[in-house]
Amino acid sequence: MQHEKEESRMQAHRHRKGLEVLDDMMGANGQMAYEQMRKLHPDFAEILIGLFGDFYSRPVLDKKQKALVTLTTLITQGALPQLRLHTNTALNAGLTADEITEAAIQCIPYVGFPTVTNALQVMQEVIHSRSMSE
Amino acid sequence: MQHEKEESRMQAHRHRKGLEVLDDMMGANGQMAYEQMRKLHPDFAEILIGLFGDFYSRPVLDKKQKALVTLTTLITQGALPQLRLHTNTALNAGLTADEITEAAIQCIPYVGFPTVTNALQVMQEVIHSRSMSE
Amino acid sequence: MQHEKEESRMQAHRHRKGLEVLDDMMGANGQMAYEQMRKLHPDFAEILIGLFGDFYSRPVLDKKQKALVTLTTLITQGALPQLRLHTNTALNAGLTADEITEAAIQCIPYVGFPTVTNALQVMQEVIHSRSMSE
Amino acid sequence: MQHEKEESRMQAHRHRKGLEVLDDMMGANGQMAYEQMRKLHPDFAEILIGLFGDFYSRPVLDKKQKALVTLTTLITQGALPQLRLHTNTALNAGLTADEITEAAIQCIPYVGFPTVTNALQVMQEVIHSRSMSE
Amino acid sequence: MQHEKEESRMQAHRHRKGLEVLDDMMGANGQMAYEQMRKLHPDFAEILIGLFGDFYSRPVLDKKQKALVTLTTLITQGALPQLRLHTNTALNAGLTADEITEAAIQCIPYVGFPTVTNALQVMQEVIHSRSMSE
Amino acid sequence: MQHEKEESRMQAHRHRKGLEVLDDMMGANGQMAYEQMRKLHPDFAEILIGLFGDFYSRPVLDKKQKALVTLTTLITQGALPQLRLHTNTALNAGLTADEITEAAIQCIPYVGFPTVTNALQVMQEVIHSRSMSE
Repeated sequence: MQHEKEESRMQAHRHRKGLEVLDDMMGANGQMAYEQMRKLHPDFAEILIGLFGDFYSRPVLDKKQKALVTLTTLITQGALPQLRLHTNTALNAGLTADEITEAAIQCIPYVGFPTVTNALQVMQEVIHSRSMSE
Repeated sequence: MQHEKEESRMQAHRHRKGLEVLDDMMGANGQMAYEQMRKLHPDFAEILIGLFGDFYSRPVLDKKQKALVTLTTLITQGALPQLRLHTNTALNAGLTADEITEAAIQCIPYVGFPTVTNALQVMQEVIHSRSMSE
Repeated sequence: MQHEKEESRMQAHRHRKGLEVLDDMMGANGQMAYEQMRKLHPDFAEILIGLFGDFYSRPVLDKKQKALVTLTTLITQGALPQLRLHTNTALNAGLTADEITEAAIQCIPYVGFPTVTNALQVMQEVIHSRSMSE
Repeated sequence: MQHEKEESRMQAHRHRKGLEVLDDMMGANGQMAYEQMRKLHPDFAEILIGLFGDFYSRPVLDKKQKALVTLTTLITQGALPQLRLHTNTALNAGLTADEITEAAIQCIPYVGFPTVTNALQVMQEVIHSRSMSE
Repeated sequence: MQHEKEESRMQAHRHRKGLEVLDDMMGANGQMAYEQMRKLHPDFAEILIGLFGDFYSRPVLDKKQKALVTLTTLITQGALPQLRLHTNTALNAGLTADEITEAAIQCIPYVGFPTVTNALQVMQEVIHSRSMSE
Repeated sequence: MQHEKEESRMQAHRHRKGLEVLDDMMGANGQMAYEQMRKLHPDFAEILIGLFGDFYSRPVLDKKQKALVTLTTLITQGALPQLRLHTNTALNAGLTADEITEAAIQCIPYVGFPTVTNALQVMQEVIHSRSMSE
């Protein structure tokens, strides 16, 4: 019982911290992504938000560097739906559209052009739709 | 014949530019890597050095950013021999050992821990052996 | 000629055995999947049905265990169209919707969340559409 | 300045050579693919066309062999949009529809059937739509 | 400051819970794996042990089912060092050597034989070395 | 009982056909590979030899084309132990060392250079050791 209280206190702390980080990173998009995850599966959403809190609150790398790492791993693994979300996050973090595009181009010699072409299409769509709404 | 002269002039230009970039990025390690590639296959070495010249001379991203992108794509695809070389290159480019390690940690929620564990082992070996020889 | 007779007898045996296994695993869905494969390419359909007969008639693992292995490999490789089919098969084999979902969640530390998110979306769609039609 | 002149001369040469190769490989489809790439990102299009010129002008393998290698790597990595384009290129190079289909079937024991099924669907669509328009 | 106290209390809780789970799953091997991770990188070890605690304490799937999912995802992604560790864990969880081997065989039609061959070699080594020491 | 007799007759037929194909493809290496597989796991060896018989006895693609497809899928997926075996098989099938090397080079724009470098090293080792023993 003591254990369960500690556990639920920890969950609440992780949830709070994760939401703060998500809000800081993604603004309204973050809240929306969280709600979608909750609909998909409530436990899954809590795990995800806990992990976000853990990793994005770490020191050493600044926001732009974290965004660059995240974009690159998503490009490399062809995780296109997540790349859409994190292209937005990377722009929020202060990377320019040119820097984001160059990250994809820098991947060409390492992953080949099919992977980069498919990633760049998603990324350019996000970049264009944001420049339209500004 | 005119075509062949143009072609060989272009090859020479690409070769020169690639070697300069390699030297700037990797110092003595670059020359060594190039010699190994030449032994493996001469054409392959020329293609590689040409691509290096093209990509690493591009503007927009600075050296540290390029190194961060390169490390992340190699971590994600489990390219361990290349990760060894580029951990060195990343340290040459001015990233600290802590930043390099954090790039791997930042990948955990995106690729899972087996991929990151295997990468981190290689990266820490390079970091330790360099700190020993300083 | 003797060889050809033996060959065609073997093909017929494998075909029969495969169809039985498919019917046992998937019911009407199995027959439909087979017909789709036949339209795609007749030889391809025979190879597939032969392999199904071989692997799903093996002893040692029970149906639920085979379904768990199959789901996990499809989640890990991001084979979303096949995951749709085999989520149904897994439910037919007697795994509960909760067990299926937990298999995906158990993969998070090993493959990262983009891969699991994309898989879970497909799996939840199948689970919801079945619970609607019951 | 001398360097820049040399660089731009080289770019022009690579561009010209790449367009010739693309035209030879893909006809009208090649020009269209290039225009799409230019819209996506002008630098990306130049890099790609430069690489095409380099690799498809190499001796040793004939056109059919290059097409077979290209199809197989795209099947294996699940690069479906590029597979659509290169199924056309392979037919242009003189591979028959049956040979192309067999390349996919030959991959089954090496990559498993989900990867091959998804590839074969794209390839058969291209093959059918070409046989309709003949 | 309040925040930092909460954070360090949470870390201690996650650490404790993770160690318990690790001990339950792997016995002496778990402690050893944790020490190796700590030498590799202390933060990395804490993240990993936290994740282990989270995922392996979840209900719904029993230990054998979790072990089956874990083996299958490691086989599929070719994570051979981790597969060595988790073959041991799977035997501890009560799966038989035959069940473990069948999990690999069941993957053949889904991932192809090179991936399974390389996995099976590692798994059989663990199985043989354990049967020798019994 | 009738069923079991049919089943064992089919197994014998597949075994015989597979061994013939293996012998034709790999000569002494094939027999050795089969023995290694049998030691690893007898059922696994029978499945593999059955699949080899099925796929390598198919018409349409000639031996060289099948070898080219096989090499390319192994290069692309980084299946280095299998690539070693099949570089030998490809040379037996009549592909020249230059053609084999070019298949790897042709993959560079599609998979990137880390994957190709690692593959080419294995392939060149086989090529050199064969040219030494001739």
